[in-house]
Amino acid sequence: MGGGGGESNGWKTISPHPRIPPQAGEGILKFGCASLITKFKERVRMSVTRELAAYIVGSRPDQIPSDVQHEARRAILNYVGCAVGGSREPAVEIALQVLSPYSGSRTARVLGRGERLDPLHASLLNGISSHVLDYDDTTPSNYIHPTSPAASALFAYACTTPVTGADLLHALVLGFEVQTRIGDATYPAHYEAGWHSTGSIGVFGAAVAIGKLLALPLQNMIWAIGLAATQSAGLREMFGSMGKAFHPGRSAQSGYMGALLAQAGFTSGEYGIEGPRGFAPVTATKFDLARITTGFGSDFGLRRNTYKPFPCGIVIHPAIDACIQIQRERRLSPGDLQAVRLKVAPLVLDLCNKRDIGKGLEGKFSVYHAAAIGLVRGKAGIAEFTDATVNDPDVKRVRETMTVAVADDSIAEDEVIAEVTLASGERVVKHVEHAIGNLARPMTDRELEDKFRDQGAPALGAQRSNELIALCWSIDKLGDCRALIEAATPAP
Amino acid sequence: MGGGGGESNGWKTISPHPRIPPQAGEGILKFGCASLITKFKERVRMSVTRELAAYIVGSRPDQIPSDVQHEARRAILNYVGCAVGGSREPAVEIALQVLSPYSGSRTARVLGRGERLDPLHASLLNGISSHVLDYDDTTPSNYIHPTSPAASALFAYACTTPVTGADLLHALVLGFEVQTRIGDATYPAHYEAGWHSTGSIGVFGAAVAIGKLLALPLQNMIWAIGLAATQSAGLREMFGSMGKAFHPGRSAQSGYMGALLAQAGFTSGEYGIEGPRGFAPVTATKFDLARITTGFGSDFGLRRNTYKPFPCGIVIHPAIDACIQIQRERRLSPGDLQAVRLKVAPLVLDLCNKRDIGKGLEGKFSVYHAAAIGLVRGKAGIAEFTDATVNDPDVKRVRETMTVAVADDSIAEDEVIAEVTLASGERVVKHVEHAIGNLARPMTDRELEDKFRDQGAPALGAQRSNELIALCWSIDKLGDCRALIEAATPAP
Repeated sequence: MGGGGGESNGWKTISPHPRIPPQAGEGILKFGCASLITKFKERVRMSVTRELAAYIVGSRPDQIPSDVQHEARRAILNYVGCAVGGSREPAVEIALQVLSPYSGSRTARVLGRGERLDPLHASLLNGISSHVLDYDDTTPSNYIHPTSPAASALFAYACTTPVTGADLLHALVLGFEVQTRIGDATYPAHYEAGWHSTGSIGVFGAAVAIGKLLALPLQNMIWAIGLAATQSAGLREMFGSMGKAFHPGRSAQSGYMGALLAQAGFTSGEYGIEGPRGFAPVTATKFDLARITTGFGSDFGLRRNTYKPFPCGIVIHPAIDACIQIQRERRLSPGDLQAVRLKVAPLVLDLCNKRDIGKGLEGKFSVYHAAAIGLVRGKAGIAEFTDATVNDPDVKRVRETMTVAVADDSIAEDEVIAEVTLASGERVVKHVEHAIGNLARPMTDRELEDKFRDQGAPALGAQRSNELIALCWSIDKLGDCRALIEAATPAP
Repeated sequence: MGGGGGESNGWKTISPHPRIPPQAGEGILKFGCASLITKFKERVRMSVTRELAAYIVGSRPDQIPSDVQHEARRAILNYVGCAVGGSREPAVEIALQVLSPYSGSRTARVLGRGERLDPLHASLLNGISSHVLDYDDTTPSNYIHPTSPAASALFAYACTTPVTGADLLHALVLGFEVQTRIGDATYPAHYEAGWHSTGSIGVFGAAVAIGKLLALPLQNMIWAIGLAATQSAGLREMFGSMGKAFHPGRSAQSGYMGALLAQAGFTSGEYGIEGPRGFAPVTATKFDLARITTGFGSDFGLRRNTYKPFPCGIVIHPAIDACIQIQRERRLSPGDLQAVRLKVAPLVLDLCNKRDIGKGLEGKFSVYHAAAIGLVRGKAGIAEFTDATVNDPDVKRVRETMTVAVADDSIAEDEVIAEVTLASGERVVKHVEHAIGNLARPMTDRELEDKFRDQGAPALGAQRSNELIALCWSIDKLGDCRALIEAATPAP
């Protein structure tokens, strides 16, 4: 076992918290007498799942600070944009085509599409579409993309049962919080072992978010967490395949189903997270359970959330950022450019050192393409990572003939020095110390809106896209979230 | 990485087997240059998933030896009995009630019941019912219960697409085989870490079994295995709750869905089992991948399958076995008994030392109850572990007042010496060296039939139960498996 929880100092807690399961079952009977006292002591320490469940059950919307509520609205804005933006990707099309015949009554919208599925399948599809572009939010402390699994379940649920915006926002805060806490408690061991925690930990977020909307009592919330734990899955070996985007989708669906089963009395183990054969000991060699139960109601993971400004490898973000700034400040056109020199962290060249490319996907991992689109287009949205843009003559010329990148140990991974020589002979230097999107330089609300439009407008049209932005900002005023969900649906 | 495969001796295999993925994706880009050669070598070794998939794809029914085919029929007989026998348990009732509204078109029978669901949901229900009594088969080399996950998916599939009995049997052999191989390769590390391998490895069995019926080509079979790997889940922390029986059900459903997605081109990683972030390295600290790919077509896991004769803790099986033998040989009635003395392995008293009990579930873990039902009833079926039997005055008297159990280090865990003193003063001694059901003393076909009737007759009636037994024995002659599935359905 890793570090114990705060209140778990051995025998003293036995009487007030009798946490030994009252009923003899296989789980207990398999412990021999020899280790009974040790196991018993361990069990006495095991209150994490229960404490977490109690926090979820007891939390009220009015207890969420206003800054956290605003972060939740930002998370929703970013999430809906990603879900709409990814909703026509091949992984989504295939899953929809394959699973549609297995759908129950078609009461839930797949975000960004005309089709409806049952809410469990809609959760799965929402999860795939919102993650497939690698554009959703990230908590840097544990590399989880927490909004996708929780919100994908919530928006599906809200199609079939009226949910106020305030309640959905509150459930999202809790679903996010649970992922952050479990993620921080098991990072880095869990992630480094090979788990894609957006799947393997995301499932807890979906379970408690739906559990909260179902108003599960404490015992049922404990079971919902246990049924999430026992469905925890998702391997990093899937990176580079559709399997990656499948993870938050399947987690949304599994967590949602776990909450439904738990509501009806389908039991799980009581110690899903911390038990000797529970989530934490099984999936992480080191963990600190105190991080799950400390600071309820005052610490909020949403305060440490970040957004990707560009849909590409994170290590080329500083180069893009610097080149966009130069282009915008100087209003450059392609003919103004003569040479580009980037001083980057060594890791950047380890990972993104290809200039001779032909595919949009390859552009996502080329620091030369990063500079080229920044300087030629002055932006780096979905359109800048298509095959067409990668083969655009101006972009190609800057990427292949003008740009040099030099690794420098003194440059941090979120830093860059970009030096652009203009046709006039003038040299423009831009030093970005922290790329935009980092916690040190978060995207503004306005920048999130621009990112949203970049994804939403092609799918929904500019006007509908703007209406949807307004609905995301005011979601907590909505009497029924279906207004927002319908606005995310393309006009027939 | 653990032990490499047989043919994996470094660089020599590069040309004939170019297993480096051709396309640069996040998974590769995340490896830095520093470790590139090591990683490359590892990748060259990685052929396990592909080799396994190639075996599945190439296997033909006529290549399965007749003794293995007979073992598969025994597995099916036992499976169908367990599924019918468990089909009214609370876990099944709750899952059916909760999930029924989410079912797609109701084309697949839930075995043993009148209800139909879509085949994915029927897989889930079949998996729960066939495992919920802890009465299904076991491969002692890895503690997996392999028939439940594979057959639960197969019988659901066969409801919606005509499948011959021979094809279903063949698919079951392959689904069983894959579980045995992956199980043996990762045992004991995987199981001891806390994974309930009937869930976490069962998913592979369901995926390849359905993949075989779908006639997936090699690439798609590789993806089906990858999508199984990335859905692998199930914690032993659930033991003693409904969550345990949920595992083979969810695995059946997940594997089935993975195969459907893979068929349509939904991609996964290519190295789902052996990749650096694949199933084996992530879930087991030690493994021997050669066990997955050695002996294709000659070694069959079904030859090492066992059946539980009694629905209770395995360590009290020797006592039951001995007492049943005494009762049957001497045709004893309760009045003939005076005292019972059991010499048992120490573990038996560690786990099953309670005599003062009132519930059927407790009877499953009481060595005194074991002796009592053996001597009073001469059998130990479902009915002997009900609350009624536990409180039967004759059973209670033998259990609570007559029986003594003594631990003896010289007694093995599958051994017992039972000494019964009769009212006449005579002493009858029975020494069981290997309890029935062990590989050393397998259940006979006739005993499996008796076990089937014990579960099938209460649900289906004696005649229908016997017809179903005959259909299981002759399944390979069936032109359409639906005949068997309909026979497993109670008369309306």
